[in-house]
Amino acid sequence: MKAEAVESGEASTIIAAPKRGINRGISIADLILRGVAAIGTFASALTMGTTSETLTIFTQPIMIRAKYNDLPSLTFFVIANSIVCGYLVLSIPLSISHFIRREARITRIILVIFDTAMVELLTAGAAAATVVVYLAHKRNANWLAICQQFNNFCERISGSLIGSFASIIMIMLIIITSAVALSRH
Amino acid sequence: MKAEAVESGEASTIIAAPKRGINRGISIADLILRGVAAIGTFASALTMGTTSETLTIFTQPIMIRAKYNDLPSLTFFVIANSIVCGYLVLSIPLSISHFIRREARITRIILVIFDTAMVELLTAGAAAATVVVYLAHKRNANWLAICQQFNNFCERISGSLIGSFASIIMIMLIIITSAVALSRH
Repeated sequence: MKAEAVESGEASTIIAAPKRGINRGISIADLILRGVAAIGTFASALTMGTTSETLTIFTQPIMIRAKYNDLPSLTFFVIANSIVCGYLVLSIPLSISHFIRREARITRIILVIFDTAMVELLTAGAAAATVVVYLAHKRNANWLAICQQFNNFCERISGSLIGSFASIIMIMLIIITSAVALSRH
Repeated sequence: MKAEAVESGEASTIIAAPKRGINRGISIADLILRGVAAIGTFASALTMGTTSETLTIFTQPIMIRAKYNDLPSLTFFVIANSIVCGYLVLSIPLSISHFIRREARITRIILVIFDTAMVELLTAGAAAATVVVYLAHKRNANWLAICQQFNNFCERISGSLIGSFASIIMIMLIIITSAVALSRH
């Protein structure tokens, strides 16, 4: 009777070991994804936020400056990236706490709610900026292309989209791994 | 001894009853949200897709027509709404199947993955269309406002955003209820 109990105890630890390994893997993946997404949004906000190009027109005594905050969509892009970056940095301690407390059901659900809201904000910002970048590159409907004059400005606003889109994919993966982690309780 | 077993059995059904009630509530909420979101995206796609305005300029013998597919962002909006509407309709049978099979862990995770991807697509489409609608209303940077000429066109493209934004909120709620449902296994 006693021997049986010991045996079944051993069997349960053998079964539990790979499960715990997968849970640890999910926690590590969550942490890495949050870190990478935070860097991506920070890089995007910084690149877009510091973009400014001044052109001097020689035939006229005026200077034209193109800056991100001339266009509301690009301002929104910078604000959205900054907010999401701040949120991701703040969520890292909670993500680390899941290493210790595995059955943190409530905090995981709260993180899923905020992750969903934040990825929406980031997607809206990225899509809005993409439309402006597209319109800046190509003459469309009644609007004029500004890329013909502002080459450097255009290259930087196009490049800054990359970090944002990469971060969107990362946060989507975070939501999916959270769903998997929640289903394992 | 027997009476005790019966009593404990009764107690467990009493405890299980409200839990089952909550699970049923989550399943009903999921189904209703999917239905409403499908209607919202359908209405948006239809309103935007059938928008067309022709202006006759009396001083010149030409006719100018504004249609949603003149602007790539609005075309993307219609495509995104159509895809998400189709997905939501297809996901309803799976949602109904969760009434019967409560511990459908795998199908719930698959739905979360697709829901996340679809809400991203819808948000990107809505944000892209919003930028165009904003630019159409307001003269901005080098672009001209087209709303001054095309009043009816402008009103319809603005109105069609509502269904899309409502659907985004619905799908976000679906993801959150899915996370709660997954955590209850």
